[in-house]
Amino acid sequence: MTQRADLRVAVIGSGRMGADHVRRIQQTIKGARVTAVVDVDAERAKRVAAPIDGCTVSTDPLAALAADDVDAVLIASPGPAHEATLLAALERDLPVLCEKPLTPDAASALRVLEAEQALGHRRIQVGFMRRYDAEYVRLKALLRTGQLGRPLMVHNRHRNVASPPFFTSAMLISDSVAHEVDATRWLLGHEITAVTVLRPAPSANAPDHLLDPQFVVLETDGGALSDVEIFVNCGFGYQVQAEVVCERGTARIGDGHALVTHMAARWGGTIAQDYTERFADAYDREVQAWVDATRRGEVTGPGTWDGYAAAAVCEAGVRALEEGGRVTVELVDKPALYR
Amino acid sequence: MTQRADLRVAVIGSGRMGADHVRRIQQTIKGARVTAVVDVDAERAKRVAAPIDGCTVSTDPLAALAADDVDAVLIASPGPAHEATLLAALERDLPVLCEKPLTPDAASALRVLEAEQALGHRRIQVGFMRRYDAEYVRLKALLRTGQLGRPLMVHNRHRNVASPPFFTSAMLISDSVAHEVDATRWLLGHEITAVTVLRPAPSANAPDHLLDPQFVVLETDGGALSDVEIFVNCGFGYQVQAEVVCERGTARIGDGHALVTHMAARWGGTIAQDYTERFADAYDREVQAWVDATRRGEVTGPGTWDGYAAAAVCEAGVRALEEGGRVTVELVDKPALYR
Amino acid sequence: MTQRADLRVAVIGSGRMGADHVRRIQQTIKGARVTAVVDVDAERAKRVAAPIDGCTVSTDPLAALAADDVDAVLIASPGPAHEATLLAALERDLPVLCEKPLTPDAASALRVLEAEQALGHRRIQVGFMRRYDAEYVRLKALLRTGQLGRPLMVHNRHRNVASPPFFTSAMLISDSVAHEVDATRWLLGHEITAVTVLRPAPSANAPDHLLDPQFVVLETDGGALSDVEIFVNCGFGYQVQAEVVCERGTARIGDGHALVTHMAARWGGTIAQDYTERFADAYDREVQAWVDATRRGEVTGPGTWDGYAAAAVCEAGVRALEEGGRVTVELVDKPALYR
Amino acid sequence: MTQRADLRVAVIGSGRMGADHVRRIQQTIKGARVTAVVDVDAERAKRVAAPIDGCTVSTDPLAALAADDVDAVLIASPGPAHEATLLAALERDLPVLCEKPLTPDAASALRVLEAEQALGHRRIQVGFMRRYDAEYVRLKALLRTGQLGRPLMVHNRHRNVASPPFFTSAMLISDSVAHEVDATRWLLGHEITAVTVLRPAPSANAPDHLLDPQFVVLETDGGALSDVEIFVNCGFGYQVQAEVVCERGTARIGDGHALVTHMAARWGGTIAQDYTERFADAYDREVQAWVDATRRGEVTGPGTWDGYAAAAVCEAGVRALEEGGRVTVELVDKPALYR
Repeated sequence: MTQRADLRVAVIGSGRMGADHVRRIQQTIKGARVTAVVDVDAERAKRVAAPIDGCTVSTDPLAALAADDVDAVLIASPGPAHEATLLAALERDLPVLCEKPLTPDAASALRVLEAEQALGHRRIQVGFMRRYDAEYVRLKALLRTGQLGRPLMVHNRHRNVASPPFFTSAMLISDSVAHEVDATRWLLGHEITAVTVLRPAPSANAPDHLLDPQFVVLETDGGALSDVEIFVNCGFGYQVQAEVVCERGTARIGDGHALVTHMAARWGGTIAQDYTERFADAYDREVQAWVDATRRGEVTGPGTWDGYAAAAVCEAGVRALEEGGRVTVELVDKPALYR
Repeated sequence: MTQRADLRVAVIGSGRMGADHVRRIQQTIKGARVTAVVDVDAERAKRVAAPIDGCTVSTDPLAALAADDVDAVLIASPGPAHEATLLAALERDLPVLCEKPLTPDAASALRVLEAEQALGHRRIQVGFMRRYDAEYVRLKALLRTGQLGRPLMVHNRHRNVASPPFFTSAMLISDSVAHEVDATRWLLGHEITAVTVLRPAPSANAPDHLLDPQFVVLETDGGALSDVEIFVNCGFGYQVQAEVVCERGTARIGDGHALVTHMAARWGGTIAQDYTERFADAYDREVQAWVDATRRGEVTGPGTWDGYAAAAVCEAGVRALEEGGRVTVELVDKPALYR
Repeated sequence: MTQRADLRVAVIGSGRMGADHVRRIQQTIKGARVTAVVDVDAERAKRVAAPIDGCTVSTDPLAALAADDVDAVLIASPGPAHEATLLAALERDLPVLCEKPLTPDAASALRVLEAEQALGHRRIQVGFMRRYDAEYVRLKALLRTGQLGRPLMVHNRHRNVASPPFFTSAMLISDSVAHEVDATRWLLGHEITAVTVLRPAPSANAPDHLLDPQFVVLETDGGALSDVEIFVNCGFGYQVQAEVVCERGTARIGDGHALVTHMAARWGGTIAQDYTERFADAYDREVQAWVDATRRGEVTGPGTWDGYAAAAVCEAGVRALEEGGRVTVELVDKPALYR
Repeated sequence: MTQRADLRVAVIGSGRMGADHVRRIQQTIKGARVTAVVDVDAERAKRVAAPIDGCTVSTDPLAALAADDVDAVLIASPGPAHEATLLAALERDLPVLCEKPLTPDAASALRVLEAEQALGHRRIQVGFMRRYDAEYVRLKALLRTGQLGRPLMVHNRHRNVASPPFFTSAMLISDSVAHEVDATRWLLGHEITAVTVLRPAPSANAPDHLLDPQFVVLETDGGALSDVEIFVNCGFGYQVQAEVVCERGTARIGDGHALVTHMAARWGGTIAQDYTERFADAYDREVQAWVDATRRGEVTGPGTWDGYAAAAVCEAGVRALEEGGRVTVELVDKPALYR
């Protein structure tokens, strides 16, 4: 908890993803701030950087990486641009968070891998954010306990409402199933050894020539299978589901419920044991909302009137408990300040 | 997103709740830091403040409120101590987040209410954190749409594994049901007009003389009922559930699923439409984990090897799609750096 | 399984409920047939009895009970008519299944009780059919195991889409909550000692002057509470839900899932262990459908073509298992007989 | 509803399945009775037939089929014995319900198919009982409405606690997946054109040499895929699940909930609209239980005391509604007859 200086981050790419990361770092992430925004579209970079005091703007990632006030790099530019930026960051020994894909193909990824090895220590994190999703984290933690036995199969569903106009049949694999590729490797701790892709008759709602849905079967070096339904024009919603079938039970996420297991003749999930487990996020949001409102000079949450009303009702409640019957609650008139 | 100075917060009370808020502000809350920790137990305050650069420690809330480096106050001391600190903060016109209860009884709460009115503007927020819980927020938002019609009844369940040793029968109302009192007022926008408490035969698992469970019925000035099962020695878990019964349907939270409605011949919930909705928290955690690790000089997330392996599998997948059949994946040997 | 003669049943009342029981006995119930239909509306009785060989029709219950070909009586006439028929049946020592209510008030019910005692053995069953609902039966069985400890509270929900035109506020109790009265007594094995009825502001969708919904709290001689939300114009569906809160856990039915428990830090339900448990009803329906179709000279289920196609696919599947890869299925042309 | 003569059924095979069908026909199925039981094990047949008046026993199916008192045949003998019995039944033009498989291989099935064609009308029903399961029936009915669009994929799970000792790897296909083969054909109305079987590393809980689990992909002439996880030693329960993915949504059964759909931004299921929908089975069980008990001279259900107690509580409830407050219930002492 020592007060270290904030991490000064250059964000490369200021499209939807990059702009969202800029907002996230400025508004949500403790211990970091954005000091540079880079985009080939200088106007876009300017708009994104505008509200941030002292944030520079440029069109050249390499110049940004060379700046004195940059400690780390977040890459959110298009995939083909990643390799050059990654290599430059490694050259300067800068820590990197690189949105997926690392690079668009195995050969270029291998060049980055070799450059990092040459550097001699790890500097690059890839943006496979499912590893940070609360449900995936609980699923992985459960697998680690060994309660369910060895994983045999993973059934994945990955559905999007509609695909963007530029989407190709190959991108269902390289852009979408890429997430299940990483999730499978991470959940099981296996490498993938073979891939089969099955092609049902495309949905009438898929754009012409797009092979959607597809059904992909991954085989792993641990002898497991991981099948993936990828359906990017399902129309009804965005769904990411995974069920791991193990020797003694299964565990499923993405189904509305946090984590549902089937084992020992029962299905179901766990119940929180404590308010800190159930309401941890609520406390975080409460205090953040209070800090944000206070810095704007406002009070937005429950106030003194609410505290007074609760006290009056509880007093009546305790009397009702002790005396039996129905007890009425008397409140003073609500002052104008609280209306 | 302009870079304002951090809010400097004095935390009054460094017990479980206070210490947790100190940790929260230092590690999670953007735009704030703790500059003073106050506790009647000076040693406890010292322990909590120790890791924080420049954080003062004292046993006197009023002295802490007078310090130059204090912009706002978070009160987490025992309820009976709240009134004095609240009045002192109002005198200095300092913003306050006060853990519930505002004060332990209606008379003292009224004095605070009058002091804030005398000041002429609102400065106090009370820690009814359920208003910030994602499930309650969605429930309130749904009620606001009017889809379900006017609320008629709320059925609440509030269960704890076991009560602490000092818990009394009256505290089931004043300490526990206090949350449902506020939640009912907030969800419905009604004031509570009468209270009835029913007392079933106590559970054998309740401590001697503790009337547990209790069943409380609140009546509101909008003609609604809100019933509360409060059961603080249920043994099996911590559960907070609420079902609002409206003229055209019901909505329920706290049941594992985020928000389940019953209306128009269907039960169920909504499906996210977008990855930002489904994975917003994962992105926040990912970037926070990266920033935290980077400031410690570490890489803890998926790295270059994971990016390379995903690229190689996706390449094989695209070939499998285009050529049909099963395609094997070839990887270089995993370098020592990534083992 | 000895072949006894069928029970010959007189059905008194041929309205919706009576006609449904006639259909049930003739089409579904093994070991019984209807030999008399009685109704004050002779035309209605005739229509209901018409398809049944040898079934007599009359407007006089007492004459029907005196017939030689009547072994037992099913009473489905309006409540006020029950007492006379019940007393007549007891006089003739005939077994009775009497739709609820036994009689409309306690005084008349007491007269029937006394007549049966005078007879010296039990002859009357009352139509509280929830005791035969699979979910209630499982709930009762679970309570009996003692796993959850002693029951402390029951939370009941009873919702109808809309009330019939003749419904009065009192009928929400005497006609609807009557079911929860019996269910509470049966589930807990307690008698009810006191009743409180709370009246929220009526729904705008309730007919004028109808107090709907109501919230009823029953107290039992075992110290338990049973609360009932009765809402007969909820608009969205017919729902009957019950949650029993015990010393160590809760169990809930009526929620889509068969039986959900909360205990020992987990929520969830049981998984069938066997196909006879999962598909018992399917076998019953299959054989009944086959018998019914066969008696009509038809084949309505899966036929020889389906058996052949399954055999051909399974043969291909076994080859695919043994040889690896994809195996195509060859079928003869589908003969006209099976199209 | 005309009183036809009961169908007189010869049951061929009196093992677990056959004995269960005998019990079912005698106790549950309206309009049929067993007049012959045939088994190569004469003692077993005798035990099964013993409680049935006038039921003959033999070891020769063909003799049984020739008997005057046999109208129809239920075949529950081992698969290899089916062909001869089926051909004999067709020769005598007798209706048949044949447990699956029709015959063990496509060639023999084809001979039966040709014999039935030669006869010129359909006489054989195959025991694919999933077509009669309430969940499958609802799933099929939903697909027929066209709401979800054209089916693209079916994901099936078929899990058994443990396999019997004689089970072989091929039987996972021919004995177990056979059900999904029929279910896929029936749900989609497609024929299956190709099969692929994937073999993950077997579970440590599978017997030596048994390839369990397996993952089977069926392709159909309608361009759909149907994948099947077959896992016959999963240890935790018997599960049969199916999810049909269509162009505009998905529908899933076997998951505890009756039928869950995902469409139009919502997941969930339907709510019954009426007590006949919710409690139809309870009424059937109630009346059957009453008839069975009455034929034994007993009363087993809720009796006069329960009717009286309900009347007394409802009377008190109506007073509580009308007068407000808590009303106590007065009951006479419970007579010995009802204790």
